Amino acid sequence: MAREIWRSAITNATDKTTLIRGYPLEELIKKASFAEVFYLLLKGEFPSKDHAVIMNAILVACADHGVAVPSAQAARRVISGGSPLQAGVAAGVLALGESHGGAIEECARRLQEAVKQNLTPSVLVDAAVAKNERLPGFGHKVYEVDPRTQELLVLAKKHKLVGIYVEFAVAVEKALEKAKGKKLCLNIDGITAALLLEMGFDWHAGKGFFILGRTAGLIAQCAEEKIREKPFRRLADEDVQYDGVDERHL
Amino acid sequence: MAREIWRSAITNATDKTTLIRGYPLEELIKKASFAEVFYLLLKGEFPSKDHAVIMNAILVACADHGVAVPSAQAARRVISGGSPLQAGVAAGVLALGESHGGAIEECARRLQEAVKQNLTPSVLVDAAVAKNERLPGFGHKVYEVDPRTQELLVLAKKHKLVGIYVEFAVAVEKALEKAKGKKLCLNIDGITAALLLEMGFDWHAGKGFFILGRTAGLIAQCAEEKIREKPFRRLADEDVQYDGVDERHL
Amino acid sequence: MAREIWRSAITNATDKTTLIRGYPLEELIKKASFAEVFYLLLKGEFPSKDHAVIMNAILVACADHGVAVPSAQAARRVISGGSPLQAGVAAGVLALGESHGGAIEECARRLQEAVKQNLTPSVLVDAAVAKNERLPGFGHKVYEVDPRTQELLVLAKKHKLVGIYVEFAVAVEKALEKAKGKKLCLNIDGITAALLLEMGFDWHAGKGFFILGRTAGLIAQCAEEKIREKPFRRLADEDVQYDGVDERHL
Amino acid sequence: MAREIWRSAITNATDKTTLIRGYPLEELIKKASFAEVFYLLLKGEFPSKDHAVIMNAILVACADHGVAVPSAQAARRVISGGSPLQAGVAAGVLALGESHGGAIEECARRLQEAVKQNLTPSVLVDAAVAKNERLPGFGHKVYEVDPRTQELLVLAKKHKLVGIYVEFAVAVEKALEKAKGKKLCLNIDGITAALLLEMGFDWHAGKGFFILGRTAGLIAQCAEEKIREKPFRRLADEDVQYDGVDERHL
Repeated sequence: MAREIWRSAITNATDKTTLIRGYPLEELIKKASFAEVFYLLLKGEFPSKDHAVIMNAILVACADHGVAVPSAQAARRVISGGSPLQAGVAAGVLALGESHGGAIEECARRLQEAVKQNLTPSVLVDAAVAKNERLPGFGHKVYEVDPRTQELLVLAKKHKLVGIYVEFAVAVEKALEKAKGKKLCLNIDGITAALLLEMGFDWHAGKGFFILGRTAGLIAQCAEEKIREKPFRRLADEDVQYDGVDERHL
Repeated sequence: MAREIWRSAITNATDKTTLIRGYPLEELIKKASFAEVFYLLLKGEFPSKDHAVIMNAILVACADHGVAVPSAQAARRVISGGSPLQAGVAAGVLALGESHGGAIEECARRLQEAVKQNLTPSVLVDAAVAKNERLPGFGHKVYEVDPRTQELLVLAKKHKLVGIYVEFAVAVEKALEKAKGKKLCLNIDGITAALLLEMGFDWHAGKGFFILGRTAGLIAQCAEEKIREKPFRRLADEDVQYDGVDERHL
Repeated sequence: MAREIWRSAITNATDKTTLIRGYPLEELIKKASFAEVFYLLLKGEFPSKDHAVIMNAILVACADHGVAVPSAQAARRVISGGSPLQAGVAAGVLALGESHGGAIEECARRLQEAVKQNLTPSVLVDAAVAKNERLPGFGHKVYEVDPRTQELLVLAKKHKLVGIYVEFAVAVEKALEKAKGKKLCLNIDGITAALLLEMGFDWHAGKGFFILGRTAGLIAQCAEEKIREKPFRRLADEDVQYDGVDERHL
Repeated sequence: MAREIWRSAITNATDKTTLIRGYPLEELIKKASFAEVFYLLLKGEFPSKDHAVIMNAILVACADHGVAVPSAQAARRVISGGSPLQAGVAAGVLALGESHGGAIEECARRLQEAVKQNLTPSVLVDAAVAKNERLPGFGHKVYEVDPRTQELLVLAKKHKLVGIYVEFAVAVEKALEKAKGKKLCLNIDGITAALLLEMGFDWHAGKGFFILGRTAGLIAQCAEEKIREKPFRRLADEDVQYDGVDERHL
């Protein structure tokens, strides 16, 4: 097996310079927002002003959701065990699996494929209804209308990002209401998915946006755990219910 | 900077053979216990029968401690987010920091240094008492005598591993009782620390034993979470208390 | 949402006792091998002597494969960044994905389903050949006969674990040779998969065995990196080939 | 042990609303940059315009440094093992230890303590020179003047963030030149450290900035590995040098 060369088209880092997708890092420090640099890193091109606004809004929308969700819990438990910040943040990132932010990716996949195959929103909805399946990106426990979605839609209109995918997503919301007889609103995951596609990202990129956004919150969660709480927090006995076999012997 | 060569003295793995510290893997599969192979990997030499018994006992002693501790919680939260087994186990391992198994390493460090500097147990104890500091490896919430320590001590005697470090640790227990006026028993972390030193390991190795032992339990915890529970478990509202600033606006 | 109770049937750990699947930890420390305890944790029952031997052999077979594989590299890079042992081991475990030990699980899945559906080995092989697909668990770059598989087969015979799954796997090896005109030996992943099924584990458990086994090696790899190497090892310039866009400006 | 309540002052997330440090998420989506939200999450207060600019510049400065550094390598190896994006990113984050971005934190700690204790830059430098110790945050393999530092200094002046810490850091650079007889420039880590202190963050926060910044690059590194490379990349035989014991037998 030949020795491996590590090809990369992302960053040209030598002792003398750091070029990110061709742009000198010094220039980016001076002129670019962090959201623009992330877009540049991921896509290879600097965003337009319109894309930059949406990109930033998506990251902000994912930034934190409190202490109760699996990622915050995983992160804080690791800090509670006495490990350093990077370990806590990593554990939090690890929790961002299929059931935690995964709806963005799955919704984007379905939108992308539906558009590619020229399906109508009704076909997508009917297929899900027939399988008694919940469409990722639609529905919310409380909201009939998701206020975060509304903000992103307003921004999307203002910045000319309402194209085929956003329109498709909004049409799915209507088709769902018709098919189910109740409102299942386009939620924050769904609008994020549609906007990623509008900016030309592939559905596979979906998880990355959520990870970067939420890492901001995870760092704060870890810092708070370290500063405010005693180490080695454990569940109370009343929070645990052992339901295995009784005592026995070899 | 010259191209890097990855030196290693652990395993010689080629397309034709795998030699672990010189021994063909086929031979180890046939003749060695997993505890012996771990000892071999870490120390470079195959253990004596006596060392092998103690090594195995230490791994078993660390294997699991239920669902309430930070490592099990971190692991299960990651599974709950929908990530695969290796991610859950990794998160659990990450929680094994200074406050979670760290007492083994810290106790071993102090024993090793005390012996090296020819300190008496009383000197060690008096220094800790003067600083009002808890000696890692001693004391237990409930036990006056830790039954797991007792089992390991019985094994240690039977397998000729009661040497300078175990004797020192037992003497510290007595000195602590004298100095504090109450029993602070040599606990499972403390006896593990002493036995590692008796087998010729450096105190730095302490965390590794705990990690391997506990990984067995973490795998079981992750498997149970995946099989028995619904994804995306989150804290109930009543388990969370927001104590930050009130609503405000930009 | 009601407050969550953490049910578990694995370990009953209170301040007074630790029962693993009902057995007092003190008893296991005295009488059980670490491989037996892992079996107990995962399956809920203590293994027979025969199962215990095979379980141990499987863990040993996975213990280490040198410094070149992705898991060892990931682990050592993390240590090289200056993070603690638990972080290095966790990164190594994270690399144990579908392409790194995943063949055990996938092979076990196919064997389990084939047996369940009463398929013949030829049907399985023909389906794979028709799709020009490599059957996980079969074939090796160098070996015509995998010596590790041979050792495990000898052990399996001696310990009465050659049942329907091992026979099926051996028959697939023969059917493959017939269909492809060349030997694609039952490799270490394939025999491990068959033996797990023989011991009554579900194919989903496959990755867990590999993770626990390899964690032994990862701990040694991390320890060696920390002791022998300078921090912050990076690729040499000649190992990297930037092939992105040329310098440009905003 | 009483049941634990999870206190948090960061985000008030209920079914009806998400308030980050009191601000409705919808409002932040509309009006705030991601860098501002990170500042808000970490510090509890929304940054001034000046602080927001510097915060953003620091995140951009950390965003990526190519494929050769330990974090990128750890991340890509995990992807190469076939694990999902979140696992690769987590492994990369784990590599951000004391030797990889740690200089920011350590430099900030020394600056903060020196200022607190009213030390002069010369005292700090002389102490380091006496111990033959390299001062974190100063010196670069190639640069006599670090161009990224220069950009950050220009920004700092423009945005009124040249206060006691930046002045101290610049003075240390001069004292170092005098004491060592050669230029050891204030590097990117050093100026970042000084600016964090100027914005009122504690030195402990240093690693968090680097983690969030670099996560952007790690996501791109993982995506590129997945898209461009075959799975299970391993070191070539010529990159590995086994230097352990020769073959032997039990």
